[in-house]
Amino acid sequence: MIRVVCKAKLKPGVDIEEYLNLAREVVKETRKEKGCIMYTLNEDINDSSILTNIEEWVDEEALNQHNKSEHVLNIVPKLRELRESTEINLYREVKY
Amino acid sequence: MIRVVCKAKLKPGVDIEEYLNLAREVVKETRKEKGCIMYTLNEDINDSSILTNIEEWVDEEALNQHNKSEHVLNIVPKLRELRESTEINLYREVKY
Repeated sequence: MIRVVCKAKLKPGVDIEEYLNLAREVVKETRKEKGCIMYTLNEDINDSSILTNIEEWVDEEALNQHNKSEHVLNIVPKLRELRESTEINLYREVKY
Repeated sequence: MIRVVCKAKLKPGVDIEEYLNLAREVVKETRKEKGCIMYTLNEDINDSSILTNIEEWVDEEALNQHNKSEHVLNIVPKLRELRESTEINLYREVKY
């Protein structure tokens, strides 16, 4: 299983609802994907221009498939236009 | 419910196992806390010096209690000494 944190900072002046309406569509479609365990969109409590996906995928192949999906290819470029920055990290849980 | 992402970057040359041994103790004790839903420690797939907690708490009060716990007060300062940087964000999931 892999976890993904995708932290986006919106450009100043961007309408957050415009961003969220597009992002909600990605959430809805992504949750139907076979290899998706968890896919959430989260707003920073202290800064509403920081919007972060916290995700769990069965494996890296599932994430690769996601990145080639129609909803990602169609909608994510529009989201990126509204962002100042995007920070993506892929993680494996450590052994305890 | 709130989510927390705490992303730490270790100082160059720090022994990752030394860091993990301390961090595992925090994980073990934190998972016993009443308001803790999920508490995981994750290593970046592409950079093993990036170690990130992905957490879920029942509410902000539970997180405040955690930050005053003995294991946090005793161990987290030692972890911070081994880190170059620490980035903490608190999140609420958006409405879909």
